[in-house]
Amino acid sequence: MSFYDFNQMAFIQKRENVLIKSITGERMEMLVVRLKPGEKTCHSHPQEQMGYILAGKVELTIADEKKICGPGEGYWIPSNVQHGFEVMSEEDLEYIEIFSPPKVENKL
Amino acid sequence: MSFYDFNQMAFIQKRENVLIKSITGERMEMLVVRLKPGEKTCHSHPQEQMGYILAGKVELTIADEKKICGPGEGYWIPSNVQHGFEVMSEEDLEYIEIFSPPKVENKL
Repeated sequence: MSFYDFNQMAFIQKRENVLIKSITGERMEMLVVRLKPGEKTCHSHPQEQMGYILAGKVELTIADEKKICGPGEGYWIPSNVQHGFEVMSEEDLEYIEIFSPPKVENKL
Repeated sequence: MSFYDFNQMAFIQKRENVLIKSITGERMEMLVVRLKPGEKTCHSHPQEQMGYILAGKVELTIADEKKICGPGEGYWIPSNVQHGFEVMSEEDLEYIEIFSPPKVENKL
């Protein structure tokens, strides 16, 4: 399938405060991610990661850099670099996220 | 650099009706693309491509499938598959686009 209407796709609950809609290709995976207020994560993984904020505010930590990002801001997280997301808005954080290679556990 | 504020980045004019802002990683490249009304393209390339429409309407052709897509809709174009974009709105089309691997000619 080539076309994906995210407006029509249902969110999958990945964890308590983490919802995703995901499409998986060969070399990459694109998601719409929704994080609830209060969500705070920190981890690393072999996948390279990029993102673009659609709504809400997030404090992003990438290695030893920190920045509060809002709509229209993006980021690049190289492979295996530690990174954290903390939702700073009262509304949900919503963003486009891309992993390369795809995260196998997200494949629907 | 890890953080990119697309609100502050200037568009680069790639062709007459095509403007881009681009960030390039190791395995992928993410762009904000703006196409002017009337823009119509059709081509293929070895890079896998995904996208997410932010504003405007586009008639997307991927191989032999066609769909008019608007905000919140996405697409996946596998490597070397012919695809076309025709702007169908009176306003500019704006979308997030990801290539894997990156397009060398877009690297700033």
